[in-house]
Amino acid sequence: MTIAVPPPFTRPPAGRPAAETIERIAATLKARFGEHVQTGLAMREQHGHTTTWIVNQPPDIVVFPETTEEVAEIVRMCAAERVPIIPFGTGTSLEGHLNAPLGGVSVDTSRMKRVLAVHPEDLDCVLQPGVTRKELNEHLRDTGLFFPIDPGADASLGGMVSTRASGTNAVRYGTMKDNVLALTVVTPQGEIVRTGTRARKSSAGYDLTRLIIGSEGTLGIVTEITLKLHGIPEAISAGICSFPNVKTACDAVIATIQTGLPIARIELLDEVQVRAVNVYSKLTLPETPLLLFEFHGTDAGVTEQAQRFGEIAADNEGSGFEWTTKAEERTRLWQARHDVYWASLGLRPGAKGVSSDVCVPISRLAECLAETKADIEALGLVAPIAGHVGDGNFHVMPLVMTDDPAEMAMADGFMHRLVERALAMEGTCTGEHGVGQGKIKYLEGEHGGAALAMMRTLKRALDPDNIMNPGKILSEG
Amino acid sequence: MTIAVPPPFTRPPAGRPAAETIERIAATLKARFGEHVQTGLAMREQHGHTTTWIVNQPPDIVVFPETTEEVAEIVRMCAAERVPIIPFGTGTSLEGHLNAPLGGVSVDTSRMKRVLAVHPEDLDCVLQPGVTRKELNEHLRDTGLFFPIDPGADASLGGMVSTRASGTNAVRYGTMKDNVLALTVVTPQGEIVRTGTRARKSSAGYDLTRLIIGSEGTLGIVTEITLKLHGIPEAISAGICSFPNVKTACDAVIATIQTGLPIARIELLDEVQVRAVNVYSKLTLPETPLLLFEFHGTDAGVTEQAQRFGEIAADNEGSGFEWTTKAEERTRLWQARHDVYWASLGLRPGAKGVSSDVCVPISRLAECLAETKADIEALGLVAPIAGHVGDGNFHVMPLVMTDDPAEMAMADGFMHRLVERALAMEGTCTGEHGVGQGKIKYLEGEHGGAALAMMRTLKRALDPDNIMNPGKILSEG
Repeated sequence: MTIAVPPPFTRPPAGRPAAETIERIAATLKARFGEHVQTGLAMREQHGHTTTWIVNQPPDIVVFPETTEEVAEIVRMCAAERVPIIPFGTGTSLEGHLNAPLGGVSVDTSRMKRVLAVHPEDLDCVLQPGVTRKELNEHLRDTGLFFPIDPGADASLGGMVSTRASGTNAVRYGTMKDNVLALTVVTPQGEIVRTGTRARKSSAGYDLTRLIIGSEGTLGIVTEITLKLHGIPEAISAGICSFPNVKTACDAVIATIQTGLPIARIELLDEVQVRAVNVYSKLTLPETPLLLFEFHGTDAGVTEQAQRFGEIAADNEGSGFEWTTKAEERTRLWQARHDVYWASLGLRPGAKGVSSDVCVPISRLAECLAETKADIEALGLVAPIAGHVGDGNFHVMPLVMTDDPAEMAMADGFMHRLVERALAMEGTCTGEHGVGQGKIKYLEGEHGGAALAMMRTLKRALDPDNIMNPGKILSEG
Repeated sequence: MTIAVPPPFTRPPAGRPAAETIERIAATLKARFGEHVQTGLAMREQHGHTTTWIVNQPPDIVVFPETTEEVAEIVRMCAAERVPIIPFGTGTSLEGHLNAPLGGVSVDTSRMKRVLAVHPEDLDCVLQPGVTRKELNEHLRDTGLFFPIDPGADASLGGMVSTRASGTNAVRYGTMKDNVLALTVVTPQGEIVRTGTRARKSSAGYDLTRLIIGSEGTLGIVTEITLKLHGIPEAISAGICSFPNVKTACDAVIATIQTGLPIARIELLDEVQVRAVNVYSKLTLPETPLLLFEFHGTDAGVTEQAQRFGEIAADNEGSGFEWTTKAEERTRLWQARHDVYWASLGLRPGAKGVSSDVCVPISRLAECLAETKADIEALGLVAPIAGHVGDGNFHVMPLVMTDDPAEMAMADGFMHRLVERALAMEGTCTGEHGVGQGKIKYLEGEHGGAALAMMRTLKRALDPDNIMNPGKILSEG
């Protein structure tokens, strides 16, 4: 079968703008936005990629707008000169989403921090994209409501929309795609588009909201977000249980989900990860795979559910099952999960964590984990694993001396095999980190040429000059 | 602000194909598919719109493929001659989705009925689009799993994908957009695209799955669907409660949801609807607004939840609260809901039901219902209301003598005001029926010119010759 060649750009894609173009844009922006335009190197480097081994590629200019209209004005300025635009939230993304391979203007949303409306009766709120998830939950404190999506970092909601973020609560509350009702988006032409309404559901035309979610700033800049909220559960039960191996732990997770227990979080730490947290946090957990779980509901409900989980764990060789509904005790039991990142770095001082994530159907998870662990062992890598196993999603973080080319090549080969393994098991090359620059090379293997051509057609139709975050997802940098 | 004019079609949109083109296509299709190609008038009329007052516009040819490859072959034949293609499931859509205003080929999926795989451990299955929701649940009978989305009609899953269907269970299980993991789609060029994998979540590029869901066959034909499944609940409690007016009923719904009670269904019948079912089914329900509810979970859970709901109902002037966990009793209590459609028609023999649906934020639902009922009264219409009120979604069905132009004009004005009211309350012109031909005129009011231009840009980029279900959603017929 032949694959349609996507239509060409209206004009050839813009390359790096000329120095005088950037100077002119900087001067125009400064005249308009004063001190809210910055061009110093330190500021620019902070606005490139900073979190992993991916090389920092700073933008030329950083601008801090406050409103949708200001963003639209900036985009129109850049569009007229075909200058790249890179939306920026908090800088916590992991795959190079914020880099500026062609230079251009970083649009930092950190001054767009207003919560515009909270509608407690409708369980929704409207906010600017610079609000972080913790700031939102702080804002909601007295309403009895909360926003559950928790990707670990205190990311901005705009960034979380753009990467289709999820995290520990996704098994119950879904991902960002399930928790956004509507968006305001500034298009690559500087127009303001409203996608969706505050209705909980709609069949009125193409789902522009879901098209923007996960598009990583390549189709427009999100300037306003309408989010679903959830009632703070009346009661929470939480606990832990150890297993002899990842297979038995995964079997317990599968049985839990099949039984229909409404689990809110279920996390796996492998024995390497448990050893790391034992050292880091002076815990005494058995150094075998550990499941941590949480249920949200009524007192009677979460008690019944935790007990049920205990029975399922016992049926699958679980041991050391402990659970509680008390807040302080829950914090103690979940300590191991909270310390994962820093504890892991402690396993190999001086090394950097080269984090990646994949997601597979849960029936293949044990096999995927076992093969991945065998690969780690064969290479002699130190690479703890932590997973949102209710969704079949896990993170592996080889600790690598990133200035050693041989080690980096080994880690790269490992990552490559990890992705191939996930794809062979009908999974995805990234469950929640996104594509950015780091996973562009895997998209064709995952989606096939025809689907990738469709994505390119969409990008070219909406951003014919390729000025929106070029060089991400589709490699049109 | 100026709205970008979408790029023109690559060539001018195709109009109705010449008679000799249709003859040539029919001959080619018959040579290839034999008796699975039909051109008789009765068959063609069955494949146009048949369910409401919208005028029937039959296709020229009906073809019954069995596989994705056959669909791709048909589409390539049609694409070469720029002949319109209209995908057909069971014909139960309500807004004229299946009409052929330019003639063309109806691709009937009723021979695409294979369930290709069920993965009980992963709670998913893969099937062809002609499988209906009841057939799927029959197929799943021995697995302990079920597919919850229930739009009323025994629609095909392909049709349900295409209209982003939902129904009574959506408040708990979401709509089609939340229950599809991946699709196989034949594009307007006859290519086969796979969107998504069996992973429960992914951040790997644009969400093609959600772009196709709700696109009503205007961007391609769905030929394979990977669906999420759910465990059949261990226990179900169900019940009913009457309220003095829609305001108190809606307040009870809002309180239920805010409390975080995991309601599975919550339906409202207004007093006109209750009167209709009393007559039709010889019931003796008080002729005031009625809520019907259902909880899914464990024995202890659903008992606690039903009791909680009873307390909330009592706080909101509810009366006649009855509930049960027994299957036969549940059927009895829910009888009123099951009979809604035929009971309504009985209110005015000889009249047709002109069904419409809107969806608003739940805080505005009581107001929207009250204004709608006032309009009904002022016009002297007979128009029962039934709603999936947990989502703020309701149906109103004026009973109209459709051959009386004055009545039709009155009903049309009523529908127009209904939509305007919903939009003014931050709602949508259709919660679940879709746009088809019937609601094209409302899309600009709902989305605004810029968002509609973006939808048009997508359509033109993916289907530059406008052969896929022309004349639907975007009025490019």
